[in-house]
Amino acid sequence: MTQQNRQILLVEKPTEKLSPSHFEMTTSEMPVAGDGEVLCKTLYLSLDAANRAWMQGKTYRDELGAGNVMAGGVLAEVIESKDDKFKPGDLVQADGGWQEYFAQKGKVLMKRKRHDPLTHLLSILGVTGQTAYVGLLNVGKPEPGQTVVVSAAGGAVGNVVGQIAKIKGCRVVGIAGGAEKCDWLVNDLGFDAAIDYKDENIFQGLKEKCPDGIDVYFDNVGGQILEAVLFRMNMHGRISCCGAVSQYDTGNPGPGPRGVPGLLVTKRLTMQGFIVMDYAKDLPKADEEMAGWAKEGKLKVLEDVIDGLENAPSALVGLLAGENRGKRMIKVA
Amino acid sequence: MTQQNRQILLVEKPTEKLSPSHFEMTTSEMPVAGDGEVLCKTLYLSLDAANRAWMQGKTYRDELGAGNVMAGGVLAEVIESKDDKFKPGDLVQADGGWQEYFAQKGKVLMKRKRHDPLTHLLSILGVTGQTAYVGLLNVGKPEPGQTVVVSAAGGAVGNVVGQIAKIKGCRVVGIAGGAEKCDWLVNDLGFDAAIDYKDENIFQGLKEKCPDGIDVYFDNVGGQILEAVLFRMNMHGRISCCGAVSQYDTGNPGPGPRGVPGLLVTKRLTMQGFIVMDYAKDLPKADEEMAGWAKEGKLKVLEDVIDGLENAPSALVGLLAGENRGKRMIKVA
Repeated sequence: MTQQNRQILLVEKPTEKLSPSHFEMTTSEMPVAGDGEVLCKTLYLSLDAANRAWMQGKTYRDELGAGNVMAGGVLAEVIESKDDKFKPGDLVQADGGWQEYFAQKGKVLMKRKRHDPLTHLLSILGVTGQTAYVGLLNVGKPEPGQTVVVSAAGGAVGNVVGQIAKIKGCRVVGIAGGAEKCDWLVNDLGFDAAIDYKDENIFQGLKEKCPDGIDVYFDNVGGQILEAVLFRMNMHGRISCCGAVSQYDTGNPGPGPRGVPGLLVTKRLTMQGFIVMDYAKDLPKADEEMAGWAKEGKLKVLEDVIDGLENAPSALVGLLAGENRGKRMIKVA
Repeated sequence: MTQQNRQILLVEKPTEKLSPSHFEMTTSEMPVAGDGEVLCKTLYLSLDAANRAWMQGKTYRDELGAGNVMAGGVLAEVIESKDDKFKPGDLVQADGGWQEYFAQKGKVLMKRKRHDPLTHLLSILGVTGQTAYVGLLNVGKPEPGQTVVVSAAGGAVGNVVGQIAKIKGCRVVGIAGGAEKCDWLVNDLGFDAAIDYKDENIFQGLKEKCPDGIDVYFDNVGGQILEAVLFRMNMHGRISCCGAVSQYDTGNPGPGPRGVPGLLVTKRLTMQGFIVMDYAKDLPKADEEMAGWAKEGKLKVLEDVIDGLENAPSALVGLLAGENRGKRMIKVA
């Protein structure tokens, strides 16, 4: 029997909330590496809130079309190479999509050194950890003693942002959904305080838990939480815009936050959007420093690994509902 | 007869649109300079959209209260001084308010060198010109050949922003109200194009007149115009947030612009609020360069001088409706 390639297609674009029914598992022939191409086997598939944003329109990548293999970042192993720079057994990071095998030009693959455990290459040493690192330190620029607030604080990026801010000597307040998650942020991860946005009034919570105002806000969610934070920002504060997950899983994104641009002027705030690749030159340093902190036990590595490609659709839907703690990924092989 | 001091009070805070009936002229006794104080005679009173914003709440200054002398920036002459650093005849810039005379501590006054004509000290060499200069060059950071869009382009700050951007080799598009004002921006001030927001669809106008997108937006207005601009910004564009005049003269400011923070992330935009004093160290250079450009005829100085303190209320209401071209001020003495 010829070997085959299991793939998950996005068969219909969601107009409202995403559900597993928007996806379909299919089986196709094994891809073949053409000239300059590399055949890869997916080991781990990264699940990210951005996956949903890609379905809404053109972002920093083209909009996803229905009927295609669902897009996603992966960690993969080279099986066969027609590019001199790669050989079987090499580890690569790629935009491989939700499938077991893929063939792509060598120039779009990023070689990774092996690391034990491999999963760290998708969490603290992958796009997730790098996003937290550059978004907090290069964009947010917190100083010791300042107050840093992070939303989606239990998520893959948010928990790392909060931990790095603590390492840097900041007071850290996380915003997350659910009392249990909030307790965990404070008791297990060392956050100074947490606000349960599902249960507490955000304005009130920020007032109580950020008595000296907010100097840096790492925003993963946008919407009403961003609005509430704007009113508590200190003069010359910085808002690092990483994502807007509150606006992704809907057919009708809300208006922007009140206070833009009025509060930006009166408080002289800076809001800056970024993606990891804007700081490509700083990433080796980020990886090195993060690996060091993890080794010393200063940075807890939180991973939520789900087995089996077939579980990717429901795992992504769950991630958008905030059910994960730390970096969610699928073990494909 | 003892000399008296004519003053204009803000007798009632507006809940909707500002009108002259919110003000009242009164006459009080001449102020007296106490220890360390300086008695000043107001020569020119600056009218600014920010005057209205101060009535809405705490900004970078305390909220204005009803029953007090209306606040405002002035150019004044020293009459009597009990501070060694000042002597009669000195020229000062101050937060003197809408009145003929005032006494303040010397330390809150800023001495100005005489300049011919004096009015330039309130337009290109005052807060207005400095705001345009630092907001465009220090915050917006345009490069030659890039597209700069400015709103309230016929106003005191806007017209200067557009002219500086032209001097710096940018393509400049102004947004203003009325066909006549738009023609004037293009034909008299050398803007490359103008959009009449009262008559044209802003999205369509920006598409046609900024075929290469927008690299720098100098925002004086906020609201729907900011929203439309966000959708036409180029990757890594900068938005210099100077004011939000669309939101000032109302009891019910609108929601924020759609696309915040989503478009900030996908296009990696930076939005930054500022006021002149954030760049205090650059102001001498700004004044020098602006004076040079004006002398060489590269920068047209547009002033709208109205005679008589009693006309300040209607002149401010008119400014908020966009009836001025260039820097509006009141000649008090």
